[in-house]
Amino acid sequence: MEKENKRGKHGTGEVSPAVIKRLPRYFRYLRELIRNGRLRISSGELSELMNVTASQIRQDLNCFGGFGQQGYGYNVNYLYAKICEILGVGEGFNAIVIGAGNLGKALVRSPMFEKRGVNILGLFDVDPAVIGRTFGDATVYDMAQLEDFCAEHTVDIAVLTLPKNCVGEIAERLAALEISGVWNFTGSEPEASLANTVVENVHIGDSLMTLCYNLRLKELLEEGRDA
Amino acid sequence: MEKENKRGKHGTGEVSPAVIKRLPRYFRYLRELIRNGRLRISSGELSELMNVTASQIRQDLNCFGGFGQQGYGYNVNYLYAKICEILGVGEGFNAIVIGAGNLGKALVRSPMFEKRGVNILGLFDVDPAVIGRTFGDATVYDMAQLEDFCAEHTVDIAVLTLPKNCVGEIAERLAALEISGVWNFTGSEPEASLANTVVENVHIGDSLMTLCYNLRLKELLEEGRDA
Repeated sequence: MEKENKRGKHGTGEVSPAVIKRLPRYFRYLRELIRNGRLRISSGELSELMNVTASQIRQDLNCFGGFGQQGYGYNVNYLYAKICEILGVGEGFNAIVIGAGNLGKALVRSPMFEKRGVNILGLFDVDPAVIGRTFGDATVYDMAQLEDFCAEHTVDIAVLTLPKNCVGEIAERLAALEISGVWNFTGSEPEASLANTVVENVHIGDSLMTLCYNLRLKELLEEGRDA
Repeated sequence: MEKENKRGKHGTGEVSPAVIKRLPRYFRYLRELIRNGRLRISSGELSELMNVTASQIRQDLNCFGGFGQQGYGYNVNYLYAKICEILGVGEGFNAIVIGAGNLGKALVRSPMFEKRGVNILGLFDVDPAVIGRTFGDATVYDMAQLEDFCAEHTVDIAVLTLPKNCVGEIAERLAALEISGVWNFTGSEPEASLANTVVENVHIGDSLMTLCYNLRLKELLEEGRDA
C-alpha cells in the first residue's frame, strides 16, 4: 500500500497518520496568521499560540520539509501551502448535501467548505416545501433527481444530514452511483453498502459527553477542596 | 489533583484519559444494544461490532469493574449505567444555546442533549425576528436578558453557535456569570476570559479535511494501480 502511495505525484507516504491528524489544526492557525498579515513565525511563538511543545511542532513540520531557519522561523505561506497540498485542499472536490433541514442549511451557509476548497453543488431533500429553494448559494433538488444529477455532475462527496432511519436506502443509492466519499452526520452505524466508500462519521454528541465529564470532574474537585 | 479526585463520591481517578476518550463510543453502541433489547454481549461480538480488538475492550471495561463473565459476557445494562455515571450523564446539567441560527436550531431539535441527560433551558439571540419563537421545546430569549435569566436559573453550559466575531464580548459576559462550561462551535480561538471555564471546542471542518485527505489518498492509490 505504501509502495503504491509513493508512486503518486504528491506522494504522502512519508507523513505519519498521527501527524496527518494534527494538520487540520495547523491549517486553522496558519490561516489565521495569514489573515493577520504574518509572513513568518518562530516555533516558540507557534508553540505558545497552539499550546503544543516547540519540539512537537518542529517534529511535525519537519516531516514534510517545513524546516524553520535559525533566526527566521517558519515561512507562514509556505507551510500553509504545503499543508493544503497534503490535506487535499484545492483538489476541487465537489459535494452535495442530502437533507435540507437545519443542519444541512447551517452547513451550506458556513464558510467551511469554501475555506477547504470544496464546492457545494446543491442540497437534496424529499420535502416539497424546500425543493427549489436556495440556501447560501445552494439550490435544493428533489431526492428523486439524485441519479440524473450525478450523471451530469462529478460528485465526490455526499454530506448526510438526513434522519438516521433513512440512511440505509440512501447509502445503497450512493454506492450504486460510486460516490467516493461520505461525510456522515446522522449518527448511524456504518452501512455495509458503503464498504468501498471513504466514510467520515461526525459524532457531535461525543464532544458533549467530554464536556459533561470535565464539568463533573471540576465539580468533584471543588467539592474535594470544600470538604 | 488525582488525590482530590479520589475523594469524590464517584471517584474517577482510576480511569485513564485515553479510556475516557473512548467511552462515548461505548455509550453509543451500548445504547443501541439496549434499544434492540439485548441484555448481554460477549467481548468478541462487541469487538466485531465496534471494530476494536477484544483485548482492547476487556482492558477498557475492566478499568471500572465491567468484568465480563466466562460463558456469559458483559451485562449490557450494567455497563451502560456505569459509563453514564463516569461520563456524568444524568447529572442533570442545564444548558442554554447562544445563537438561534440554523446550527443552534438544529442542535436544540436533535435528541442529542436529552440522550445525554442535558436539559436545554432556552436559546438566546439578538435578532427580533426570532426572539420569542420556539424551536423544539426551546424558546428564544433576547440576549439582553441573559444576566436576568442566569440569576433565575442554574445554567451549567453555554453552547456557542453565534458568529465568530461576537464571541469575545459574550465570553466576558459568560465568565462574569460564572457559567462552568462552554461548548464552542464558533471556530474561534480560546478566549482568555474563559480561563476558569471548561471549554470544549468543536471544529467540524477538521473532520472535512480528514475526509478530503482520505479521498485524495484513495485517488492516488487508484492512479498508482492504473499506471
